[in-house]
Amino acid sequence: MMMMRQVRHFKVSNQADMSNGPGARKDSVHVFVLRVYFEDTDAGGIVYNANYLKFAERARTEMLRGLGVEHSRMIGEEGRAFAVRRCTAEFLKPARLDDLLEVHTRLLTVCGASLDMAQDIKRQGVNLVMLRFGLACITVSGRATRLPPALRTTLANLWQQNR
Amino acid sequence: MMMMRQVRHFKVSNQADMSNGPGARKDSVHVFVLRVYFEDTDAGGIVYNANYLKFAERARTEMLRGLGVEHSRMIGEEGRAFAVRRCTAEFLKPARLDDLLEVHTRLLTVCGASLDMAQDIKRQGVNLVMLRFGLACITVSGRATRLPPALRTTLANLWQQNR
Amino acid sequence: MMMMRQVRHFKVSNQADMSNGPGARKDSVHVFVLRVYFEDTDAGGIVYNANYLKFAERARTEMLRGLGVEHSRMIGEEGRAFAVRRCTAEFLKPARLDDLLEVHTRLLTVCGASLDMAQDIKRQGVNLVMLRFGLACITVSGRATRLPPALRTTLANLWQQNR
Amino acid sequence: MMMMRQVRHFKVSNQADMSNGPGARKDSVHVFVLRVYFEDTDAGGIVYNANYLKFAERARTEMLRGLGVEHSRMIGEEGRAFAVRRCTAEFLKPARLDDLLEVHTRLLTVCGASLDMAQDIKRQGVNLVMLRFGLACITVSGRATRLPPALRTTLANLWQQNR
Repeated sequence: MMMMRQVRHFKVSNQADMSNGPGARKDSVHVFVLRVYFEDTDAGGIVYNANYLKFAERARTEMLRGLGVEHSRMIGEEGRAFAVRRCTAEFLKPARLDDLLEVHTRLLTVCGASLDMAQDIKRQGVNLVMLRFGLACITVSGRATRLPPALRTTLANLWQQNR
Repeated sequence: MMMMRQVRHFKVSNQADMSNGPGARKDSVHVFVLRVYFEDTDAGGIVYNANYLKFAERARTEMLRGLGVEHSRMIGEEGRAFAVRRCTAEFLKPARLDDLLEVHTRLLTVCGASLDMAQDIKRQGVNLVMLRFGLACITVSGRATRLPPALRTTLANLWQQNR
Repeated sequence: MMMMRQVRHFKVSNQADMSNGPGARKDSVHVFVLRVYFEDTDAGGIVYNANYLKFAERARTEMLRGLGVEHSRMIGEEGRAFAVRRCTAEFLKPARLDDLLEVHTRLLTVCGASLDMAQDIKRQGVNLVMLRFGLACITVSGRATRLPPALRTTLANLWQQNR
Repeated sequence: MMMMRQVRHFKVSNQADMSNGPGARKDSVHVFVLRVYFEDTDAGGIVYNANYLKFAERARTEMLRGLGVEHSRMIGEEGRAFAVRRCTAEFLKPARLDDLLEVHTRLLTVCGASLDMAQDIKRQGVNLVMLRFGLACITVSGRATRLPPALRTTLANLWQQNR
């Protein structure tokens, strides 16, 4: 019996460690890798435009999971969720079937009840799609609410590294 | 044998006919009606954000079909297609399962090789999502190209009505 | 201002009225019409296989709506929903971008807590995909439960017409 | 700058190596791991039924990639593709947001122009959905054709291990 198993590892490398000059940039970037399947493409032979928003949401979800936040628990235990309020997208080049893509996610701002994120979708280092998302923290009934305090602290720390 | 048949009618009513003053607005708005199904929703109980872009694309497709342009023929006969270059979306209120939505589409600008459109998704007259799309005409190999002349004339006429 | 409005009419024609012999068939078929958009296709230029299941679910939803049952109210007021338990699909011919398809839905059996349906997806009278679904009535917590009595009576009457 | 990188490793472990008795099972099973995101769920709080077919297709794609076959190259260089001809699905238990699922794929039969596969979708060892697919090799114009010879040999060898 042959068994092939796909295992995912998350590697965290703090590139700030490798810099020591006063002007060193301290961007915090989360990189999520995904493969393009038939389901993602359309009859034009390229990835259907709305599907890049799905890729971005997968990456945000994994960035949050890496910070200890899982959507299902956040809904079930805290009664809170993130809602997308605004999105802008620039579609520069198309992705295609079988492409291996990277979603690079950066926190732009963290406020009491909202976040802004920049997400670039790349293939071999080349930007294909550039996205910006404004997210609001909401209760399960849809009202705006403050971020859970522990999450806010974690995100604010990440954000400080970015400035 | 009982047979239930869903038939779709497109009603065109030129509201400019109903105005006669010199300052009458002459907006051309295409309205596309759609129903929200389970496939469109997510575990938050609302329509998943990327799916509004699909609704918008259905509406643009039907607007163009109403003007005599079918994507599959445009690709097959003219070797041209529309690509989404830019999108901005404001998500104001969520749509839910079984909602009947209207997508209101307006041409904002028509250039030689590109179009801008505004698309509002409404439920019972209330805006839920406001979208803006920048579309480019491309060849099947992905290069920017001019709009087919007949389509450009048709769209420019529509657009003139809008100014 | 020109306004194009898409309005949907449901036409019910009881073909049994047109037959008067003793052997007249009394099939109850619900026909749902839909258009294929870019979102439904894949890089093979055809409708992606899983999307036919979405088309079938839209048709079942509209068949039930025609019988007075709306999913969102059934969940909210009765605490019950339909879950797909089994599905078989034969993919005979592919549908393509811009195709106008018909989903023909027939009830095969109605039991206390479950239904079987046959759904054929056709283009201009030709079968493209033949589907069979086994559906169970469940509570919101996922347990099997009996059909709401009024719905069961309605469905059983439809089914009797089919035999 | 912190960088989190998701890297995927494919581990191949031939369990037949670990057994040496005459009755050792020689099943060849490919296991593909995936995460459930919001895009996969519906307003019932569970994975939408059609999306399991997408999960299965991702797994078949990766199984073939592991055997050296990439869809895009198979289409571009050989002018051949796989089409789904038949599918049966048993939906036993629902998957939910944030679940980590495994798709277990086995070859059931390999013929000159077609394949049968069994795919089970599991969560922590428990079967949620059991799928069977009949696939045909087709030309880009949609005609049935023989499998590329090298692929057929590879698959037949895998299948022999299964018997």
